[in-house]
Amino acid sequence: MTGAPTLKIKMQILCGHEIAMGPGKADLLEAIAAEGSISGAGRKLGMSYRRTWLLVDVMNRCWEAPLVETAAGGSHGGGAHVTELGTRVLAHYRGLQQAGRDVEAGGDWTALQSALRDMPKVSQSEP
Amino acid sequence: MTGAPTLKIKMQILCGHEIAMGPGKADLLEAIAAEGSISGAGRKLGMSYRRTWLLVDVMNRCWEAPLVETAAGGSHGGGAHVTELGTRVLAHYRGLQQAGRDVEAGGDWTALQSALRDMPKVSQSEP
Repeated sequence: MTGAPTLKIKMQILCGHEIAMGPGKADLLEAIAAEGSISGAGRKLGMSYRRTWLLVDVMNRCWEAPLVETAAGGSHGGGAHVTELGTRVLAHYRGLQQAGRDVEAGGDWTALQSALRDMPKVSQSEP
Repeated sequence: MTGAPTLKIKMQILCGHEIAMGPGKADLLEAIAAEGSISGAGRKLGMSYRRTWLLVDVMNRCWEAPLVETAAGGSHGGGAHVTELGTRVLAHYRGLQQAGRDVEAGGDWTALQSALRDMPKVSQSEP
């Protein structure tokens, strides 16, 4: 961690108890588009095949249609691609993240940041 | 929980490992301003005096100057008020929250929401 004061903005899209889209799943969609397979995307992101598959499964179950489609050839063997819906969902999620960065660059956070200490003072007493 | 898809935007302002300001602390500042005491604010929010005091202590240690000042008369007996800095910090934090609501009302979330299922489909298989 750094000593600088931080504004933490976390954006999660929930579908029931599942996270339909978040920072990790967005990066995974991008990696699948780049690598052309679920296993290749997992390797790129340093995740096990099982974990990668589970994240894709959650995404595919949360939206009106799958975001990722696998080609024939077995779950490991065939390639995978991001669907047209997946491409749109990724673009809009990146839009949300950009809006979050705009909030961070805005006047309220600038004003707050200037009044924040780098580290908290030590507590002196308790009631 | 509801079945409706949700965009969860969480904004926390961190100072070291402490949360300098967040939804609960902002509500506490407002309650102290309204009630004129830490104990009264705690009662209003249904928190123990000790928990309320600890939240005030964190706030007062994270910013360049205290956000809450207690009057003489002992830790329980005297009143408390929100300082001028506390009032400014609260206003800017409410500004951040409003910016978050603006993101929720924006086009990206509207587009995503229309493609989200109310509840995830049941998983069929695993690799």
